[in-house]
Amino acid sequence: MVRCGVILSPVQRGQTPGPDNPPMRVAILGFGLIGGSIARALALRAGGDWSVAAWSPGGDGPRAAAADGSIDLAAPDPGKAVAGADVVVLAAPPLACLDLLESLAGPLRDSLSQDAIVTDVASTKRRIVERAAALGLPFVGGHPMAGRESTGYGAADAALFAERPWVICADGAPAKRVNLVERLARATGGRPVRMSAEAHDAAVAAISHLPLVVSAALVEAVSGIRGTEPDPDWPAARALAASGWRDMTRLAQGDPAMGAGIAATNEDALASRVRALRSALGGWLEELERRGGPDPARLEARFAAVRAVLVPDEPAADERLSNDP
Amino acid sequence: MVRCGVILSPVQRGQTPGPDNPPMRVAILGFGLIGGSIARALALRAGGDWSVAAWSPGGDGPRAAAADGSIDLAAPDPGKAVAGADVVVLAAPPLACLDLLESLAGPLRDSLSQDAIVTDVASTKRRIVERAAALGLPFVGGHPMAGRESTGYGAADAALFAERPWVICADGAPAKRVNLVERLARATGGRPVRMSAEAHDAAVAAISHLPLVVSAALVEAVSGIRGTEPDPDWPAARALAASGWRDMTRLAQGDPAMGAGIAATNEDALASRVRALRSALGGWLEELERRGGPDPARLEARFAAVRAVLVPDEPAADERLSNDP
Repeated sequence: MVRCGVILSPVQRGQTPGPDNPPMRVAILGFGLIGGSIARALALRAGGDWSVAAWSPGGDGPRAAAADGSIDLAAPDPGKAVAGADVVVLAAPPLACLDLLESLAGPLRDSLSQDAIVTDVASTKRRIVERAAALGLPFVGGHPMAGRESTGYGAADAALFAERPWVICADGAPAKRVNLVERLARATGGRPVRMSAEAHDAAVAAISHLPLVVSAALVEAVSGIRGTEPDPDWPAARALAASGWRDMTRLAQGDPAMGAGIAATNEDALASRVRALRSALGGWLEELERRGGPDPARLEARFAAVRAVLVPDEPAADERLSNDP
Repeated sequence: MVRCGVILSPVQRGQTPGPDNPPMRVAILGFGLIGGSIARALALRAGGDWSVAAWSPGGDGPRAAAADGSIDLAAPDPGKAVAGADVVVLAAPPLACLDLLESLAGPLRDSLSQDAIVTDVASTKRRIVERAAALGLPFVGGHPMAGRESTGYGAADAALFAERPWVICADGAPAKRVNLVERLARATGGRPVRMSAEAHDAAVAAISHLPLVVSAALVEAVSGIRGTEPDPDWPAARALAASGWRDMTRLAQGDPAMGAGIAATNEDALASRVRALRSALGGWLEELERRGGPDPARLEARFAAVRAVLVPDEPAADERLSNDP
């Protein structure tokens, strides 16, 4: 794998199209933060090697991108976007990607070029890869590990993927197709990482989907919204909330439909992680409710073990006083 | 209560000392982020109305603050810091505050002025207020709701408390003492909020201490550090971690001794919140493991209810596509 830096030399940027690097036509279906950032990254980094057509249900994003020169065509319908495309990128949440696969295998089949390949950027991979295989589509799953809470083309950023892993789930696809998706990932500044769809879903259940559910459950646990009565302490507590609370609840502010799609298409790996978390919390409860009161030394050792996972090379602590969460 | 903005007019800043506003001598024991930020805020905002002596176990912070003009005296021992002080501020983690109270009631008693009052800035209040009362100290508990992950005087910031709530636990203390602590809070830019120590501890258990424990438990649940074997999937998962993981584990990177002190001195309110979170996670498990598979509409409604707590005035969503946690 070639690692592409954020700043490319003119030679790197202007890869001369040739037999190994033919110019590429990309169709992006769905055009929010990720789809828009792919378009901007290709426009800024890859110049004339890539031409991009985009379609979204509302159409505002593609129109804005065409107006600012980031794409070549704001397509009025998905068929006109995919017509003539070498690579079709599904840039929608997981459940919408499943629907788009059905369309590509059905009404849009005739619009797809003979040699076109289809990829996606959704947060879960196993269901999508399985559905594409079942539909006989020339598919390679993908997932750039980049995002932010802001949404829509207005938040799109050409640097979003720079040096970030871009998971590619070959899962038996021909090398030529996989190479093409890797080329797309690298052209945006991403760093292709091959994994099976199953390994991907297990990994993101741990570091992305469990945190999302935990963030939501935390709000439920303290605001009382799941009970029959609002928690009477919540207004007072909320008024004191500081940066720690903000950090821990940022994910729960994301799009509910996106969260639902993620949870619904990675439910077994996610459920297994939720169980592990409940077990870890059970361990904390035991410490807090020890006969005779909690043992600060045991609690400190437990926090220190966690910190050592996160900060492997601990600098010597000098004066560690008065730092609130 | 007077609300002080970050930018003060010269008249506000230079409150003329008089019968209602006598010049104040402050002793700060413990001098990390919070103690240092109090000193810097007083130096920058309150000018000559406050003089500050500070002591810390290592002494580096007070020496640096004396050198840069933020305090008047880097005291070589706690006794020299408190001698002549009108207000003694314990700026240490909860367990260290308990030890400092013992010292003030014991060996340091004779160094305390007749009319001196003692306050603190620790994250839990009930144990500290109770201990101070049992020791017969002239105490009013405090807790500025401000912090960040960086520690030490080097991270101190004169604007840390600006417009932030500063909880003051009067709990029956004479009005004169309470007013003096409120005056200190306002002089740093903070906004005094009176609460009982018990109400404070319940509130921060929800919005500060539970998030801290959850952040740690999340790391345990996915890294396998609590099991007998390291989780074989952890290295692959970790390599994909993005901003969501970083946000959710930031609190767990804090000082383990601070975390232990918080958990050990607010264990019952915290345990009750951990139970509520386990229950909320149980609800998510039920959704994920529904017979026939998860129902995306139910999951979306659950995420949407959480989001409505966090973002009460939801702007209309236009194109919400492709936003990864």
